[in-house]
Amino acid sequence: MDKLLRIKMGPDGPPGFTEASMGDYAGMGGRGLTSALVAKEVPPDCHGLSAENKLVIAPGMLSGTTAAMSGRLSVGCKSPLTGTIKESNAGGQAAQVLARLGYGAIVLEGRPADDAIYKILIDKDGVKIEPAEELRLLGNYDVVDKMKAAYGEKITCMSIGQAGERKMRAASIAVTDMEVRPTRHCGRGGVGAVMGAKGVKAIVLDDTGCSMRTPKDPDAFKAANKRFVEGLRKHPVTGEGLPAYGTNVLTNVLSEAGGYPTRNFSTGSFEGAGKISGETLAALEVERGGSATHGCHRGCVIRCSGTFYDKNGNFLSKQPEYETVWAHGGNCGIDDLDAIAMLDRMDDDFGLDTIEMGAAIGVAMEAGIASFGDAQAAIDLVRQVGEGTHLGRILGSGAAVTGQVFGVERVPVVKNQALPAYDPRAVQGIGVTYATSTMGADHTAGYAVATNILKVGGDVDPLKPEGQVELSRNLQIATAAVDATGMCLFIAFPVLDQPDTFQALIDMLNAFYGLSLTADDVSELGKTILKTERDFNARAGFTREHDRLPRFFTTEPVAPHNITFNVSDEELDSLYNW
Amino acid sequence: MDKLLRIKMGPDGPPGFTEASMGDYAGMGGRGLTSALVAKEVPPDCHGLSAENKLVIAPGMLSGTTAAMSGRLSVGCKSPLTGTIKESNAGGQAAQVLARLGYGAIVLEGRPADDAIYKILIDKDGVKIEPAEELRLLGNYDVVDKMKAAYGEKITCMSIGQAGERKMRAASIAVTDMEVRPTRHCGRGGVGAVMGAKGVKAIVLDDTGCSMRTPKDPDAFKAANKRFVEGLRKHPVTGEGLPAYGTNVLTNVLSEAGGYPTRNFSTGSFEGAGKISGETLAALEVERGGSATHGCHRGCVIRCSGTFYDKNGNFLSKQPEYETVWAHGGNCGIDDLDAIAMLDRMDDDFGLDTIEMGAAIGVAMEAGIASFGDAQAAIDLVRQVGEGTHLGRILGSGAAVTGQVFGVERVPVVKNQALPAYDPRAVQGIGVTYATSTMGADHTAGYAVATNILKVGGDVDPLKPEGQVELSRNLQIATAAVDATGMCLFIAFPVLDQPDTFQALIDMLNAFYGLSLTADDVSELGKTILKTERDFNARAGFTREHDRLPRFFTTEPVAPHNITFNVSDEELDSLYNW
Repeated sequence: MDKLLRIKMGPDGPPGFTEASMGDYAGMGGRGLTSALVAKEVPPDCHGLSAENKLVIAPGMLSGTTAAMSGRLSVGCKSPLTGTIKESNAGGQAAQVLARLGYGAIVLEGRPADDAIYKILIDKDGVKIEPAEELRLLGNYDVVDKMKAAYGEKITCMSIGQAGERKMRAASIAVTDMEVRPTRHCGRGGVGAVMGAKGVKAIVLDDTGCSMRTPKDPDAFKAANKRFVEGLRKHPVTGEGLPAYGTNVLTNVLSEAGGYPTRNFSTGSFEGAGKISGETLAALEVERGGSATHGCHRGCVIRCSGTFYDKNGNFLSKQPEYETVWAHGGNCGIDDLDAIAMLDRMDDDFGLDTIEMGAAIGVAMEAGIASFGDAQAAIDLVRQVGEGTHLGRILGSGAAVTGQVFGVERVPVVKNQALPAYDPRAVQGIGVTYATSTMGADHTAGYAVATNILKVGGDVDPLKPEGQVELSRNLQIATAAVDATGMCLFIAFPVLDQPDTFQALIDMLNAFYGLSLTADDVSELGKTILKTERDFNARAGFTREHDRLPRFFTTEPVAPHNITFNVSDEELDSLYNW
Repeated sequence: MDKLLRIKMGPDGPPGFTEASMGDYAGMGGRGLTSALVAKEVPPDCHGLSAENKLVIAPGMLSGTTAAMSGRLSVGCKSPLTGTIKESNAGGQAAQVLARLGYGAIVLEGRPADDAIYKILIDKDGVKIEPAEELRLLGNYDVVDKMKAAYGEKITCMSIGQAGERKMRAASIAVTDMEVRPTRHCGRGGVGAVMGAKGVKAIVLDDTGCSMRTPKDPDAFKAANKRFVEGLRKHPVTGEGLPAYGTNVLTNVLSEAGGYPTRNFSTGSFEGAGKISGETLAALEVERGGSATHGCHRGCVIRCSGTFYDKNGNFLSKQPEYETVWAHGGNCGIDDLDAIAMLDRMDDDFGLDTIEMGAAIGVAMEAGIASFGDAQAAIDLVRQVGEGTHLGRILGSGAAVTGQVFGVERVPVVKNQALPAYDPRAVQGIGVTYATSTMGADHTAGYAVATNILKVGGDVDPLKPEGQVELSRNLQIATAAVDATGMCLFIAFPVLDQPDTFQALIDMLNAFYGLSLTADDVSELGKTILKTERDFNARAGFTREHDRLPRFFTTEPVAPHNITFNVSDEELDSLYNW
């Protein structure tokens, strides 16, 4: 990971690339690297789709090593959806492969002068950039099939579907999993539109002939990794709940807690939750010959994913994640797992953020474009996004634009990005994260649900404002650091509860890099990342007034608790005081 | 003008109203009143379409008197387009009639609980609010015809077309002219969508039986008005140019100056300018039996409007204004006056801001939705806005949303509002106004074109940054004050050049109200209004970073001068230092 690959896509001349040392960015990884580079090199007031924006693709600090769970890939840019800095990360194979190929980051710069599209091929022998007309307006599944046919079964692909090519603000970047399926997505913030604007349809990676990255102190690294894995296995969330039922284990939990946003955030419990819960989903998967326990990348020991087969026993999609089941399910009043899995497959194929799509459809349903609960209508709407009809373009622009176009007042977004699957009125800690994150509404940025609902890392009453800012602050700092390591965020559950597991993580970093970091240093890393991101946003025009939930969360009580979000503005404004 | 009429449209119970004295708002008028009330009573973070927003309709301080040119009506609210405070004003009869009916303002509050629509009838006997299902989804021309049939030929109407009912962000509020045609529009900022959200389709005014407002010192008032009118008549702009050719006299002037934004701001001169110029338009109007010199309200002595007849000699629309001829003409590469007049008629009928629509179509043309220069396609696109097709809803949401939906980078908006008909690179003073106005991009907020191009009020080189901030500052202050008086903004030409005409205006105010205002007091009034507006915007989250032109104006030189906008950010930030 000592090479920085810059690929200039135009407009002055054909695409070309340069390789150099990491320079200023040496030692950085993941979100730490993407945010540092974007903050330094991208004009904060540029248009997200402009030649001046850059798309930074970076494995984490521990990616490409034997460390468990280190397969997270960060993608960063100025977001065309939020206007803020953006880091969106995904599992799949790409982080490990890129790291083993020796790249600390790939930076896509510029833009073709025409509307040509390209594929980028990277293996141990180097980099090729080639026209890719044959991939135009293909979905991610077809892109991957064509790339496998051309370059073999051992490749790893990053690609965009029709949505990214059309520069839709809900467009994701797909990353292939262990079965070389485009099921893992850098979903949020329209990063796929930025890749589309740069004229890059696919990046094909092959690490054949490359070896694992080697630690400075292999024995200490191995020992720390062992303790780390033991910690993951003994924690009830990462050792039991997630392997058995996947992330969708949360559906029943949140609906029972009254924090499950239903029918565009109009109530907090969904009467159909049981029909789409993780328990029901896992049973259905097994019944049809799929699997309910499956990893998204080599080295995963949590294995929270799965495979969903259709009624005829054919692979349809990976196990839909909780956020997807919510977005296309309860948020639209839909309780049909087959429909939800089909929507998941379509989103993955078209290259769309499932959260943004479900939220946009929820807003469209509120506008009367379709009825809440109409699964076939939702499938038709997503199909239109893939086809690029005018209605599809509206929805593919995200929930905020959908609300603007149809004149809807109740639009659940912060900084134009859709709120995920936790109602901030019944889970006030996550509301603080939504409001104040540097990324727009994002549950992963500081997952206060853990402590509010799951009672991991302590116990803060979800219905009261007390303690939520401190909770969200600490989680946002910790998350920024985790997002720099390449570690799956789910390690946070045992790390928060088990001091030895946290220490094992630090020991791995120290053994690998020959450092002597302390817990405080990790915290400082997180603070530095947040500060860098917040400074970019300030230069882009964001102020405390943007660190707010939509007003209806403070004026409209939600059932069953009949409460509003009541963390005060002053408290929200104190989040970055540390 | 001592009555404040508040009409509560719901949602708790059926619509009702209260009348009270002006209270805190006594002595205020026009923009001074609308901005004071919105700033005080509307939560800055509310949704523009929410029940919490208020729509304030206010005649100016001199409306309803015998003062020439005093027919300007201000409408204010939080804008659903820009998110800022908004004042949009129009000519027509309503300001005079409302003032004679004794109303200092009408405030529409709340919102119906259902989607019912209403008409509001106001005459000397009082106020009635009645269901208006018979008007649903009618255009403004049909609305006015039905209201005339029901309430007589002497009414004045304010109404919204299909766009306002559908809560489109480009929706205007129509005001009828002397012929009771819905040709004058509070166009900017989506004020029609706010009226639509309040469920008000039409406000029918009848001042039969009311008398002129009487000054404290009738003789002094009459004398001042006489000097004022003499001043208007002797100035070349208000005495010659505007009466002869209307506002469209500017087409040739701006195209020759290289400041005429052509084909979505891609060049500064339009080869078809001569075919759509004011000179050509006036000749065509006269040839077909229309008129090139016509006032929009009683008491107008400039008479810059006209009537446009079609090829068969039938009335089609009022004389299209310069901004309309530009927006639907040069900005879309269209040089066909019949098509432009048809688009003007359609915009007036559907209730749309012609500037926003032309800009949105220009962006759509850049996206390839239609070809630049294709007049029939432009007509079809506006028809779709009226019909509310999905594409029509996109365009009716304005240029910013159109750019977002179609992934266009070059989108000429400030604070989401489309730039009017002067390229800020070749007319740098107006660029300062666009960037810093409290209203989003708005030429009327500080018409630096006067001094940059027309050499009225001095001479500041349009191509250089020097002096532009001071120019724009002084004009923005003066304009805010003029917008409070109810005076047509065109009085600014003689007022800027002729000290005695300015004094005559002050003398009128003093004679009417028994005051002893000085020029400094008028300036203070303007400053107070701007400060009130800017404070609202700050509370809504706007900062200096929003006081910027889109980045392409600073990076992409425009022909023929091949210059970029080069007033520095620091200079822009000094505008409100006075």
